[in-house]
Amino acid sequence: MALLSRHLTLSLQRSLRLVAPGCRYVSQTATKTVSEFEYDAPSMKTPVPGPRSKELTRQLGEIQNVGAINFFCNYEESRGNYLVDADGNRMLDLYTQISSVPLGYNHPALMKALTNPNNLSAFVNRPALGMMPPENFPEKLTESLLSIAPSGMTRVQTMACGSCSNENAFKAMFIWYKNKERGTNDPSPEETSSCMINQSPGCPDLSILSFMGAFHGRTMGCLATTHSKIIHKLDIPSFDWPIAPFPRLKYPLEEFARENAQEEARCLEEVEDLIVKWRQKGKPVAGIVVEPIQSEGGDNHASADFFIKLRGIARKHGCAFHVDEVQTGGGATGKFWAHEHWGTDNPADLVSFSKKMLTGGYYHRDELQPDKSQYPHLLSRARGQGTFCAIDARDDVTRDKLLLKIRDKGVLLGGCGEKSIRFRPALVFKEYHAHQFLNIFNDVLSQYK
Amino acid sequence: MALLSRHLTLSLQRSLRLVAPGCRYVSQTATKTVSEFEYDAPSMKTPVPGPRSKELTRQLGEIQNVGAINFFCNYEESRGNYLVDADGNRMLDLYTQISSVPLGYNHPALMKALTNPNNLSAFVNRPALGMMPPENFPEKLTESLLSIAPSGMTRVQTMACGSCSNENAFKAMFIWYKNKERGTNDPSPEETSSCMINQSPGCPDLSILSFMGAFHGRTMGCLATTHSKIIHKLDIPSFDWPIAPFPRLKYPLEEFARENAQEEARCLEEVEDLIVKWRQKGKPVAGIVVEPIQSEGGDNHASADFFIKLRGIARKHGCAFHVDEVQTGGGATGKFWAHEHWGTDNPADLVSFSKKMLTGGYYHRDELQPDKSQYPHLLSRARGQGTFCAIDARDDVTRDKLLLKIRDKGVLLGGCGEKSIRFRPALVFKEYHAHQFLNIFNDVLSQYK
Repeated sequence: MALLSRHLTLSLQRSLRLVAPGCRYVSQTATKTVSEFEYDAPSMKTPVPGPRSKELTRQLGEIQNVGAINFFCNYEESRGNYLVDADGNRMLDLYTQISSVPLGYNHPALMKALTNPNNLSAFVNRPALGMMPPENFPEKLTESLLSIAPSGMTRVQTMACGSCSNENAFKAMFIWYKNKERGTNDPSPEETSSCMINQSPGCPDLSILSFMGAFHGRTMGCLATTHSKIIHKLDIPSFDWPIAPFPRLKYPLEEFARENAQEEARCLEEVEDLIVKWRQKGKPVAGIVVEPIQSEGGDNHASADFFIKLRGIARKHGCAFHVDEVQTGGGATGKFWAHEHWGTDNPADLVSFSKKMLTGGYYHRDELQPDKSQYPHLLSRARGQGTFCAIDARDDVTRDKLLLKIRDKGVLLGGCGEKSIRFRPALVFKEYHAHQFLNIFNDVLSQYK
Repeated sequence: MALLSRHLTLSLQRSLRLVAPGCRYVSQTATKTVSEFEYDAPSMKTPVPGPRSKELTRQLGEIQNVGAINFFCNYEESRGNYLVDADGNRMLDLYTQISSVPLGYNHPALMKALTNPNNLSAFVNRPALGMMPPENFPEKLTESLLSIAPSGMTRVQTMACGSCSNENAFKAMFIWYKNKERGTNDPSPEETSSCMINQSPGCPDLSILSFMGAFHGRTMGCLATTHSKIIHKLDIPSFDWPIAPFPRLKYPLEEFARENAQEEARCLEEVEDLIVKWRQKGKPVAGIVVEPIQSEGGDNHASADFFIKLRGIARKHGCAFHVDEVQTGGGATGKFWAHEHWGTDNPADLVSFSKKMLTGGYYHRDELQPDKSQYPHLLSRARGQGTFCAIDARDDVTRDKLLLKIRDKGVLLGGCGEKSIRFRPALVFKEYHAHQFLNIFNDVLSQYK
């Protein structure tokens, strides 16, 4: 796969540079691979769309919007890398249903999985998974989705499609952010009553920061973070959320190292400015959502350094960091997850997926669990005036252990009384220092046995 | 089915009235029905959740939120009306995965449909239906979903789940509303540029009117019209959209006819007030969404008269009328669609479905087609000052035919020039008269051959 990627990139670069206009570049390295169930080459019988596709488009036009139809397919006859259309044209498919077919068409292993009676019973009986899951659900999740969980993520929430995966990841970030603000307190009566009529404080003015050119789906929450095509957005009410520029790198990278580093720095600076601006507006950024490679927006890449710094900005400002791998996940970039190219153990707080995974959902770090009551077994009696704050631990042993663990992560705190932890920051302590502390505190609490 | 409903209602009413506290009411009419593939009675081996379900809940708790888990199921062993749990308890299931199992568990006809190789290839190959649908797609849609289309609806858009069905129905209403406002004009440059950054006029301040107690899904657009449980709403940013009271009827209906009619009139009056108020706020109501029976909100019913009048209010004010049949559709109310009980030929502009339909989507009237350019082949040169407006028809024959058809539907208009239609309303002409006209005009145009 790395070979393919390298060959493809080099070939494309070479053809762009060396081939005179009008010349047709023919790859010297193309080799014929025929697996037992695949075809051996394209075979074209008509222009595309052919007459049968055109007639079917006319028929479907009576029932549905057909503005985006390319042609009709014969999925039974399609095999491996070859898609067969309704006119019998066989095409080498390098687009795979917008990157959604993991192992080619009609792969025998997938056909087998789908006809397995145990799996069939889940399809036909439509279990309400949140209430009455099938007996083998924990085991199946552990064997499948959790066995390939991104680094640092121990939990997964399944969903039926990419949009629902991102919508629910957004909701998890909002809930996490508000829980963090609330600490150990219950929601106030004002919050519980106002939320039922869509008003704050129950439905708070929080935002998600996204990037120009991003595509995260087309339901209304996702759509507020999607900025790739006018036709997706026009006429649909939206949220006033911040939108940062995504780096526009120049290629080949080795010739533009300095310009590209400047471009990425400019975008990161803008991200930080927007976070501050939206906080001042009263619409704090609860989370940042980003694709490891902007796909719908034009296959825009950025360096590992960019993403690692972006993740750092999220932590500094107390925003959750959501990596949308709906299109990139599942092996297509040469790693199972595209973010693995960043080479960091702690790439994100949430990673969403769908398409080639043939299901949908999001992985998340432990503290992003939506209904998590924030450590009431460990902490109580949060109190304070100004910066002069305290919280009680369960007992003196817990308090002392927490203090040590927190110090090991780089934060100094004091104890007081029998089992209290006291906070005495300097008067130059800013909101982002509070987020720094809270992120570390959360890490320690979530690992505390 | 009508018999069951009648027996069940009468039995429940009788038991509520006649049975002394502490007495157990036993239905006299319960009869044992055993189909060849079903069990014959419940059979309980442990309390529910049993030890195996408890252990599985603990295991799943390591991976997912388990706050809503009731118990784990053995779907392979479940049959017909009987659900078997992970501890071998067999229960008569009157809840069916929140009303999602149309023909009981593992119905042989459904198993057969699912293992049909032609259907399998669609599951395993994940076609991007909007771009490259399978060859048999128009035929399958016509045979299946269109054969049971609600009255007045000729088009259907398929979706993967109930939330996506409603989200996309909402988007169709917004787009329809804006197209109606725009007439034959293209979107302005201000609209196309502002929509990419979530701002008006491209992302307009439009709203959907919903009812207190409603449940339309949990993605962010749907959630703004859902008002049934605090836990669904709390901490999630929302839209400032109007919420009307849903009638609270008193039972038995025959004893409270007058009170119930008053209650319904009160709710309808409030609907109209809210539409006016939100228009004045600059957030016009593009559509009204309602369940034929509020399910999640407490099984709240209203009369056919209520829904017919509500539909009339929608037309009067130029709002689309969306009936959410995600839970009620598919036969459970004794009609295929619950709105058939209203006895009207023109129940709605959109009807969404999922659950028992084992797919999802929405039906809609022809003019709600999202990408429809508004009759440019018939109309052009919309122009006017104040109420002094005109539009040109394609030719004089078309103009004259349109004028007659529009008059047949109760609107008087005049011709002028070679092929123009002139509008000369009185100075007491209000916005809702304009909507009345536009609805009728749209009906005529959409039927014009």
